[in-house]
Amino acid sequence: MLWSGWGDPGKATGLAPEVLELLAEALGVTPSAEEPAGFGDVRLSASGLSPFVLDSLRSIVGAERVRTDADARIRHTRGKSTPDLLKMRRGDGSDAPDAVVLPGSHHEVSEVLRICSDEMVAVVPFGGGTSVVGGVTPDIDGYTGVVTLDLRRLDKLVSVDEESMLAELQPGLRGPQAEELLNARGLTLGHFPQSWEYATLGGFAAARSSGQASAGYGRFDDMVEGLTVATPAGDWELGRAPRSAAGPDLRHVVLGSEGAFGVITSMRLRVRRLPVWRKWDAWRFPSFGAGREAMRVLAQERRLPAVIRLSDETETMIGGGSGCLMVVGWERGEPPRFADAENLGAEPAERWAEGRFGGPYLRDALIAAGATVETLETAAHWSGLPRLYEAVRLALEAALGRVIVMCHVSHLYETGASLYFTVVTAAGDDPLARWEAAKAKTNEAIGLAGGTISHHHGVGRDHRAAYATEIGPVGVGVMRAIKKSLDPMGILNPGVLVP
Amino acid sequence: MLWSGWGDPGKATGLAPEVLELLAEALGVTPSAEEPAGFGDVRLSASGLSPFVLDSLRSIVGAERVRTDADARIRHTRGKSTPDLLKMRRGDGSDAPDAVVLPGSHHEVSEVLRICSDEMVAVVPFGGGTSVVGGVTPDIDGYTGVVTLDLRRLDKLVSVDEESMLAELQPGLRGPQAEELLNARGLTLGHFPQSWEYATLGGFAAARSSGQASAGYGRFDDMVEGLTVATPAGDWELGRAPRSAAGPDLRHVVLGSEGAFGVITSMRLRVRRLPVWRKWDAWRFPSFGAGREAMRVLAQERRLPAVIRLSDETETMIGGGSGCLMVVGWERGEPPRFADAENLGAEPAERWAEGRFGGPYLRDALIAAGATVETLETAAHWSGLPRLYEAVRLALEAALGRVIVMCHVSHLYETGASLYFTVVTAAGDDPLARWEAAKAKTNEAIGLAGGTISHHHGVGRDHRAAYATEIGPVGVGVMRAIKKSLDPMGILNPGVLVP
Repeated sequence: MLWSGWGDPGKATGLAPEVLELLAEALGVTPSAEEPAGFGDVRLSASGLSPFVLDSLRSIVGAERVRTDADARIRHTRGKSTPDLLKMRRGDGSDAPDAVVLPGSHHEVSEVLRICSDEMVAVVPFGGGTSVVGGVTPDIDGYTGVVTLDLRRLDKLVSVDEESMLAELQPGLRGPQAEELLNARGLTLGHFPQSWEYATLGGFAAARSSGQASAGYGRFDDMVEGLTVATPAGDWELGRAPRSAAGPDLRHVVLGSEGAFGVITSMRLRVRRLPVWRKWDAWRFPSFGAGREAMRVLAQERRLPAVIRLSDETETMIGGGSGCLMVVGWERGEPPRFADAENLGAEPAERWAEGRFGGPYLRDALIAAGATVETLETAAHWSGLPRLYEAVRLALEAALGRVIVMCHVSHLYETGASLYFTVVTAAGDDPLARWEAAKAKTNEAIGLAGGTISHHHGVGRDHRAAYATEIGPVGVGVMRAIKKSLDPMGILNPGVLVP
Repeated sequence: MLWSGWGDPGKATGLAPEVLELLAEALGVTPSAEEPAGFGDVRLSASGLSPFVLDSLRSIVGAERVRTDADARIRHTRGKSTPDLLKMRRGDGSDAPDAVVLPGSHHEVSEVLRICSDEMVAVVPFGGGTSVVGGVTPDIDGYTGVVTLDLRRLDKLVSVDEESMLAELQPGLRGPQAEELLNARGLTLGHFPQSWEYATLGGFAAARSSGQASAGYGRFDDMVEGLTVATPAGDWELGRAPRSAAGPDLRHVVLGSEGAFGVITSMRLRVRRLPVWRKWDAWRFPSFGAGREAMRVLAQERRLPAVIRLSDETETMIGGGSGCLMVVGWERGEPPRFADAENLGAEPAERWAEGRFGGPYLRDALIAAGATVETLETAAHWSGLPRLYEAVRLALEAALGRVIVMCHVSHLYETGASLYFTVVTAAGDDPLARWEAAKAKTNEAIGLAGGTISHHHGVGRDHRAAYATEIGPVGVGVMRAIKKSLDPMGILNPGVLVP
């Protein structure tokens, strides 16, 4: 993974001259005066762990798996939000951990938590490092150091129960690794978020990921039947049955806990048979509202295909189309048909499917060209979506002036749906401050319009204030109480999630 | 509701002489020597609330809504488990509350919680009083008194959002009341547990109820989109969107909290259009295993009808059939068909549907005849069901000797299903002690076989020890921490749920 951008540097993309011209004309984007920092330019403070802590960690995982070199530290600095990338491009290594530790078992994770808890060392669980909400950037004040717990060695398919259609998988598996292991047995998770190529199963669970086929396969949290969690308070096994009336569903306390309550070391996940085929179809709707209405009917009649996604007028236009493009992918039965939309055949949908993991590469190119590009997302009930859509666009326009705001609907429920926004604007003199101000205003607008602060990116650091408003003081009290119970010294991902 | 049994005394049923004969022959059931206590015979201690507390409560809800008369107190003593009924039939009023308070609004509930928290008065939230796990029978040691909070006045359909297919409903609505209000608008919840005629929406949520049409409509917790909760720590609003990645799903902390964390005062529930028709079909499977296998395939292919239920050989035989009866009810499309089973047409299924709320009346008749009848239920993944089924039957047979154990599967998921057992045995000299010993052994067997201690009855007092084992010490710590955060003085339903 590129340390200051996305993915495989070999796949980096450039921008055509006419795109650069359009950016300049429409948004006033001008090439940045600053050269981005090189890897060797990143400013790191000295690794500050005590010899006792380092020795203890080495005795748990092995000396070569406690890394304090610049390479490991820089590659585990922050996630992949645009502010994260802007900081890295400035050579700002101030959020680097003191060490990266690579445990190979549940037991090793537990032991690392024990020593770090005893020694007040902050621990950042780390999967693919693809958080876009500051989910791997801890508060370090009050700690004797910061250790990033990279879970990549927990990468096994432990067992498969084909009768129950359950697979036990470890959290460090990246999306493609997990699919490869399952596909070999004719099985799939069917979970394909945009971050799929780099993000891990543990991250999907800890941040309640939702994939592009959520209409057919559900969200990742729908797939989690059981969890093994290492916490400073001890080990925790959850999930004896698909569903239970034995009290609150505590799996839902761990799901979405973003590494602040414990480290997921194993998961029992619902799997499905690999589909025999997947077909694509595309439609042009006359308006975003008309397309949403068609989606609502499908969802409420429970006739959703595996994939369904609707772009608003702006997103459709930027993609080279007109009206509002709906992409449909289905794997069984007949596809939905729409009387009030124009069928465009498979090609636009296949084109979308082909490029669907490529968005972050495009962002890198745009940032390099002097633009700020970022995404944000929310969800609400159907009747609240028009107001929420307008509120977010107005907030972004008010804060940023010349801006392109694109939106799509890609996760549907009987009672509502998500809205996902992509924002492109000129970086300006201080792109970080410019974006952070706009983001704060937008978070506020989402709250006032009744949306949730995140449908699938999570809370991290960036949404913590808005999250506190969303769950209210009673909810904040509950979150703090759970945190205190599981992590009495507060070493786990401090500053993330818990207000 | 009959104070010492179920439902409408006018609907009480008798047993045919041949059934009595069968009970005597097969199980050694002999008529009880004891006459059951009359209503006037129930022994109550004096209502023990202080004048200050009584005056305060009266000033909140009105004098006539703070009831300390014997009638109100007896009718709010315990739930409807067989041990509960046995105690009532003995005239044992020892678990009666000191007063029954009937609040009419969220604000009144909050105020009652405030005064009771200040004065260390235990508060038992009470809907239909149909708990079969001791869910409305509090521990009273250490409290200055016990108030039952009867929520029947919170019985409004507050609003309907037909675009989002959401209805805001209050918790005191009984099943038929809620359906009547919704049906008038062409809507339904589709939630029909056996307790439906008396149980309330608040109870469905607080105890994670699952209804007979769960295959088509989901469990009650699947329908809950939003909640308003009054807690001693303050008011709590949950649920802005169908689903969110903003942290843990705290709705799942309230769902299943059984009145121990707060009082649900309003709910936003997913509703559906009333079905245009429902058709019934019945099948005879050669064995319970073959029927379960057919169910598993349907569930994993996501082709479940609205209602599907399979009785084992014993339950089928007691119902007058042979083999294993499967009942299917569907409301759209084509019904499932089974190559390896015999189609019995609609009649057996229609007969089941007609009598489906009648089970508790039959229990009363059997208890009156000198039998002990009780139900218990669990769930596990498909591969674990054969072992779980055997383990429960063996435990009951070992503990009770001559016993009829019937079982059915009535709630299905892709990865597993529930098992619901009905047990009939002779009451014996001390029916309460005899059943409690058998129940303890069975709970242990369920845990050892990997099942959850309850799929839809809840934890209450009766499952608390098994629940603690199920969630482990880390889970117990989390439950206690949440309890302390929401209910610092521990006044809410003490002794219920939280280990």
